Amino acid sequence: MTTKKDYLHTPIEHIDITKNNPVALVDAMAKMAFTARDLARAADITNRMVEDKSCGIILCLAGSLISAGLKKVFVDMIRCNMVDAIVSTGANIVDQDFFEALGFRHWVGEEKLRSGMFDAELRDLHIDRIYDTLIDEDELRICDEATHQIANDLEPRPHSSREYIQAMGAYLEKHGCKTPDSIVYECYKKEVPIFCPAFSDCSAGFGLVAHYHNRTDSQRMSIDSGKDFYELTKLKIENPNTGLFMIGGGVPKNFAQDVVVAADVLGEEVPMHKYAVQVTVADTRDGALSGSTLKEASSWGKVDLAFEQMVYSEATLAVPLLIGYAYHKGAWKQRVGRKWSGVLDMVEIA
Amino acid sequence: MTTKKDYLHTPIEHIDITKNNPVALVDAMAKMAFTARDLARAADITNRMVEDKSCGIILCLAGSLISAGLKKVFVDMIRCNMVDAIVSTGANIVDQDFFEALGFRHWVGEEKLRSGMFDAELRDLHIDRIYDTLIDEDELRICDEATHQIANDLEPRPHSSREYIQAMGAYLEKHGCKTPDSIVYECYKKEVPIFCPAFSDCSAGFGLVAHYHNRTDSQRMSIDSGKDFYELTKLKIENPNTGLFMIGGGVPKNFAQDVVVAADVLGEEVPMHKYAVQVTVADTRDGALSGSTLKEASSWGKVDLAFEQMVYSEATLAVPLLIGYAYHKGAWKQRVGRKWSGVLDMVEIA
Amino acid sequence: MTTKKDYLHTPIEHIDITKNNPVALVDAMAKMAFTARDLARAADITNRMVEDKSCGIILCLAGSLISAGLKKVFVDMIRCNMVDAIVSTGANIVDQDFFEALGFRHWVGEEKLRSGMFDAELRDLHIDRIYDTLIDEDELRICDEATHQIANDLEPRPHSSREYIQAMGAYLEKHGCKTPDSIVYECYKKEVPIFCPAFSDCSAGFGLVAHYHNRTDSQRMSIDSGKDFYELTKLKIENPNTGLFMIGGGVPKNFAQDVVVAADVLGEEVPMHKYAVQVTVADTRDGALSGSTLKEASSWGKVDLAFEQMVYSEATLAVPLLIGYAYHKGAWKQRVGRKWSGVLDMVEIA
Amino acid sequence: MTTKKDYLHTPIEHIDITKNNPVALVDAMAKMAFTARDLARAADITNRMVEDKSCGIILCLAGSLISAGLKKVFVDMIRCNMVDAIVSTGANIVDQDFFEALGFRHWVGEEKLRSGMFDAELRDLHIDRIYDTLIDEDELRICDEATHQIANDLEPRPHSSREYIQAMGAYLEKHGCKTPDSIVYECYKKEVPIFCPAFSDCSAGFGLVAHYHNRTDSQRMSIDSGKDFYELTKLKIENPNTGLFMIGGGVPKNFAQDVVVAADVLGEEVPMHKYAVQVTVADTRDGALSGSTLKEASSWGKVDLAFEQMVYSEATLAVPLLIGYAYHKGAWKQRVGRKWSGVLDMVEIA
Repeated sequence: MTTKKDYLHTPIEHIDITKNNPVALVDAMAKMAFTARDLARAADITNRMVEDKSCGIILCLAGSLISAGLKKVFVDMIRCNMVDAIVSTGANIVDQDFFEALGFRHWVGEEKLRSGMFDAELRDLHIDRIYDTLIDEDELRICDEATHQIANDLEPRPHSSREYIQAMGAYLEKHGCKTPDSIVYECYKKEVPIFCPAFSDCSAGFGLVAHYHNRTDSQRMSIDSGKDFYELTKLKIENPNTGLFMIGGGVPKNFAQDVVVAADVLGEEVPMHKYAVQVTVADTRDGALSGSTLKEASSWGKVDLAFEQMVYSEATLAVPLLIGYAYHKGAWKQRVGRKWSGVLDMVEIA
Repeated sequence: MTTKKDYLHTPIEHIDITKNNPVALVDAMAKMAFTARDLARAADITNRMVEDKSCGIILCLAGSLISAGLKKVFVDMIRCNMVDAIVSTGANIVDQDFFEALGFRHWVGEEKLRSGMFDAELRDLHIDRIYDTLIDEDELRICDEATHQIANDLEPRPHSSREYIQAMGAYLEKHGCKTPDSIVYECYKKEVPIFCPAFSDCSAGFGLVAHYHNRTDSQRMSIDSGKDFYELTKLKIENPNTGLFMIGGGVPKNFAQDVVVAADVLGEEVPMHKYAVQVTVADTRDGALSGSTLKEASSWGKVDLAFEQMVYSEATLAVPLLIGYAYHKGAWKQRVGRKWSGVLDMVEIA
Repeated sequence: MTTKKDYLHTPIEHIDITKNNPVALVDAMAKMAFTARDLARAADITNRMVEDKSCGIILCLAGSLISAGLKKVFVDMIRCNMVDAIVSTGANIVDQDFFEALGFRHWVGEEKLRSGMFDAELRDLHIDRIYDTLIDEDELRICDEATHQIANDLEPRPHSSREYIQAMGAYLEKHGCKTPDSIVYECYKKEVPIFCPAFSDCSAGFGLVAHYHNRTDSQRMSIDSGKDFYELTKLKIENPNTGLFMIGGGVPKNFAQDVVVAADVLGEEVPMHKYAVQVTVADTRDGALSGSTLKEASSWGKVDLAFEQMVYSEATLAVPLLIGYAYHKGAWKQRVGRKWSGVLDMVEIA
Repeated sequence: MTTKKDYLHTPIEHIDITKNNPVALVDAMAKMAFTARDLARAADITNRMVEDKSCGIILCLAGSLISAGLKKVFVDMIRCNMVDAIVSTGANIVDQDFFEALGFRHWVGEEKLRSGMFDAELRDLHIDRIYDTLIDEDELRICDEATHQIANDLEPRPHSSREYIQAMGAYLEKHGCKTPDSIVYECYKKEVPIFCPAFSDCSAGFGLVAHYHNRTDSQRMSIDSGKDFYELTKLKIENPNTGLFMIGGGVPKNFAQDVVVAADVLGEEVPMHKYAVQVTVADTRDGALSGSTLKEASSWGKVDLAFEQMVYSEATLAVPLLIGYAYHKGAWKQRVGRKWSGVLDMVEIA
């Protein structure tokens, strides 16, 4: 009889950009055409962001990036002060990063599984599939339950997703982080805030539903979507010079771009995002935000035109080259961590 | 000198599916290949959902669908009891539908604007661009302000986005709905709940930020992301037989699928979504959720395999054919509105 | 044991655009956005081409269009004098249209076959797969053999693919056309030339290889790729006002566009193609010709800018709407067949 | 006044894979997901092809690859005996490689040109555009004329495109090759045959049309499409173990796959292509050949299932990694050039 072990035997291993220097390769691409040239220009813009010491860098994550083996790229960015805030889908942060921090792994799925012909069998075995990657659903339920506990331990009041994710970091501090590289834990230590604007749309959502179900109104904590937006807007006002490094589109792309307008609504004049890079395969021709050009964002007054570049590539290919480039150029060595979580905690108190 | 009027002269007009009967065309496509055959099968599944009286139909909207001229399609679905709940990005509901209900329009943008070469000029003129469609940003700020007022008038407690959007409907009832067809207003009257799981990621976000900024803790209303999820899960438990009609992917697709698991977390055994149709051009090969197959969702125990179909097409082309088909087949005449908003209001009180 | 019959039971049936009038639907799309608006504009341009009596219309076919159920659309165009020349991949003309004219059919393949998991079994059963469509390979070998016979019966000299395909029409005239609708046969009768610039890249290639193998130099007929280009260029010179209706990209798109330059090489000044419509899902961002914009073609002096439109859609969905629109507008009733094959035969003799 | 020089100032420079070793990077990708894992597997298969000394390697080129800066990658493959035959679109070989061998360059086009807004101006300046790359059209006309001369100098009989392209190599030998790296010239010296199955569909087509126009029947050389197919089939029969490295789809992909069937038509049993790698962004869902899976090709008996891999990426990004990987693994050092052009010349004589 087929068992879980027959499927879950080879773990995903996260690429280590510190070990491969792509600077010469990427520089050579600058005189080519198509995606190679775009990627070289995006690498240059990414490097400029890091060199520009007054620039606050916001990393936007959409798509299954952590399960795909890109986790250590982002952890290295955090360690090297190359990122000051993260806006992400919940899945990357909770179902994937926090999940691994609890001691679980993602698994390489055989190519044939992509066909969809084995999904009924996978379901019976409690294995969840993300294209060519597998997850033990029983372990994911443990992750759901951890988020439930964290919710229960929080004060019964509205919290931003940022505050809740900070509590996830504290949970790892207390119970031990079972992986050498965790975004949630590294951000906790470096005081880098993480926002998930659609926070119930992930493993934490199951914890929140359970919490909601078991408490009465006055005892409930809640996730305040507006507070998320307020906090990120406050950071933009505190640190007007900003750059966006976006992987995928969706809510994180839009949310991070919108803070320019939100600052204006609060009566504060802030500049547009000065730098913007997006890696995506989304088509522009369906008019949806994910594939919309960064030039279009400039008509909305959100992104400046001078340093913007889209890279048309699936992320696992382009991101190690882009971030590897900025890492090995080394401008981050002159950068200091902004500790924006601490800034926000003070804003709250004030 | 170029003025707004030079750009904003031809309004977007919403297609009326009641006037074109595509049944014969779509039926003929069933014996063809590729997208035509997929579309015919998806139309058949859509019709089965409507025929299945015990099935609760959840409409998921991602992408700029309302500004693109599809608004009346959805309003007609609501009027004909073809939809029992909506899960959407905020932009469709607030920036686009509610915006038009306030008396504003979207405008046809000339083809050359897609080039991005005119975005600086558009910004100077306070015109926002969505691919080939234009918006008067000054009018959008009025919409932002209306959402601020609505927030101010709500009780100072956590609300689901569904409750807030219901209040938007009440606002239209009070101040007058300035368009013959509004999703928000029609849902208000028909008691069809609308959920925006990333609610601050739209025009309403600006209203929420302003509200947050001007109030102290005890006076603030908030948007509780967990409550959204709890409410939709409750509906799934009340009405276990469900179908999804999804346009685009993103948060709405994932959120609506997840309620099956959420019910399980609450200790309730509910079946997977029995029917599922998705219209998208997202590629499957980047592993992201938006383009992930509905078979993959079945490995997660979310979507049943018997009646699922993806249609690879930009929405403005496929949706009038798919919904036009179901409309003209007429099974909706035997359907009764579920008034799920009322059900939820009672759950709240209990 | 599984047999061919278990797979080959439901034939592909070709859509009949004369039975569905999409004019109102398409006209309504003109005031929408994205692909709907593009399609409406492309339909208008297609109609203008047909209305413009001095315009020679060249239909370019790439992709598996005939096996997909679009055959009758093109046959109706030919019958209604809506097309004056065809440039196509060989597969559409030989493997698919001529194949059906020999009495064979294409078959609906079950959805699960797309997974690729059954291809080894299909190979054992002599069944070929095109995505979701099946072909009896033993029948295809009969088609290959017919092309061998036709080659053997031709004069031992270089022929254009156009001449060879005309001989295929004569073969059907002689042996009987076993389907009511055949592009090859209809073009033969209406004297509409068909060019396949990569003619050995299809079923006929197998016939040509066998012919080549069995003959010595002086007895061999050959397919002269240069003569194809010369003939189409001659037609452009004879009839300078031209329009292109292109489905897919590839060789047919490039070949038909290039005749403008070829005429110039022959010292004849001819205008660029006045009208150009292309239906494709090819991405522009890889820089390849198939997805390159028609504006780009204007930098090469091939396509005029006034009436060009790309439609981002899979063909089975867009083509019935586009050609159905032009058919039901009825301008073709004022058009006379150009009988360009006869013109070319005279050029040859001269 | 704007002149050509304002646009044509920065030449495209071809990437040098010998200078960047991506082996560690690509090996690390094998344990990731999505495209990274596919690319790692494709690199492994490419390396296996090179290690397998009995395997004849066929390189298939579609898309504007040479103008994009990939020329030296292919020249290095030829020099290192990593390729035994090439099947290509005409543009790569004639308009781009031979064009550079005549002493001309491709030019980096500014990003704004992609918008299409400058194409009328480019046309006036005799500048042709390929997405973000520019060509001096007056130089291209010199290339056209050189192909005319070559045609004039050939015997008045049917030639394969392979024979004609060999004559292009001889032309460079005689007049001097004005670039250090030319595919045509390197193949000439290493006796690697190049096939362009749609040969009139490129710059050479203009030369062929001029030749055709100025000669009478008995004096004309012609390009025999069937002979191309016969020659490649002969090579497959001589060397039954084969592998395909394909960039893009189109005619080259189909033509090279078809020789397995053609050999069968000639009564020779040959195995399917043992190895197959394709780099493409073409979608599978339109059913067209370019994006069709290599599994689908196995239903046609063309490609074996054991070692096939598609890589979903634009070529300028993936090809330097894939071929760089095989180059730096070094298995080519044990390989000997097959000199297949010489083999074919002997077949002709026999």
